[in-house]
Amino acid sequence: MSVYKLYCRGESGNCYKVALMLNLVGADWESEFVDFFNPDSKAAFIHTVNPQGELPVLQRPDGKLLTQSGAILDYLSRATGRFAPASDEDRQEVLRWLLFDNHRFTPAFATLRFMVGIRGAEENQLTGYLRAQAQAAYEIVDAHLAGRRFMVGDAPTVADISMAGYLYYDEDARFDRLQFANVQAWAGRISELPRWKHPYELMPRAIREGN
Amino acid sequence: MSVYKLYCRGESGNCYKVALMLNLVGADWESEFVDFFNPDSKAAFIHTVNPQGELPVLQRPDGKLLTQSGAILDYLSRATGRFAPASDEDRQEVLRWLLFDNHRFTPAFATLRFMVGIRGAEENQLTGYLRAQAQAAYEIVDAHLAGRRFMVGDAPTVADISMAGYLYYDEDARFDRLQFANVQAWAGRISELPRWKHPYELMPRAIREGN
Repeated sequence: MSVYKLYCRGESGNCYKVALMLNLVGADWESEFVDFFNPDSKAAFIHTVNPQGELPVLQRPDGKLLTQSGAILDYLSRATGRFAPASDEDRQEVLRWLLFDNHRFTPAFATLRFMVGIRGAEENQLTGYLRAQAQAAYEIVDAHLAGRRFMVGDAPTVADISMAGYLYYDEDARFDRLQFANVQAWAGRISELPRWKHPYELMPRAIREGN
Repeated sequence: MSVYKLYCRGESGNCYKVALMLNLVGADWESEFVDFFNPDSKAAFIHTVNPQGELPVLQRPDGKLLTQSGAILDYLSRATGRFAPASDEDRQEVLRWLLFDNHRFTPAFATLRFMVGIRGAEENQLTGYLRAQAQAAYEIVDAHLAGRRFMVGDAPTVADISMAGYLYYDEDARFDRLQFANVQAWAGRISELPRWKHPYELMPRAIREGN
């Protein structure tokens, strides 16, 4: 039995944030697939694991369950000493970007990619709104990354790992990410870290290609 | 001159989170109004204070500028020792709720209240989406607060102060908050803290009543 168990699904970049961290630090971990497209699977998960119905959930070695990817990354960073901020000022910056990620960078793009890239939605008022929100958030990150290798300091931290959550999915959300050259280069740097893997290599997925 | 300067606007609950914290701890602070409804005021702010265009911004005593309300609350809590988590486990929980707030509890309701309650938007696909998101987030918080006085532990922390950001605005967002009895009682408890004030008492506002 593995030391860490991650309740997750491959399509979720919020799950990927934790799966990637676990893999990068070489943790002993296993994934436990939760199929949110299957009502029975989701109901069982809510009943037995997380009444709030959110993924990811990380089961710690002592059995305690943790939720919210940013809080889990903070925990793993403290527990392993890896991808931690180098100073107190950096810690403040890492927290700032974790919050920005959860507030603006991840949600708009993730919802757009789910609706358009996975569900195949036509353009509508909501997709237009989400695309504008994603554009504004990506512009901020792209500008921040000008002349920087990583989000905070000179080395990758949990801020990068969190913000990398949705960078490697390639379902077509009709959102041109190639316009953000600094984001693209940074995504490349993160993918060159030892033990990096694509989300669909780390976690089981509900939707097979071609479906 | 005050020790802290908060760039803010009264209509923003994200600004209120910081204004409330500063007032509750009895800090020496002043507000610097930024009028986002005035293009010149907003442009000057972006040019001279925050190129990312986000409020709130807190100027620290040493002149350094901080952004992201959750990161600012964490900073103020460490700087003053007030509204801080009581243990390491509580610290993890406070971070979890700060992230939940920024990810789910604040954004959906805040955007709905801006569009419907301030801008007077008719119902549409986007307001329907935001209302459903707000409903789900409020249900989670209401369930969590059953049998609890505050979000984490027995005393108020920055998790409560962050999540209180939009509780006291009463513009009609066509979202029935009275259905959440635990949230209502908790909002009452927070408003009974010494030095609590309503957002429009703490910060200048762009829109006067009757406008």
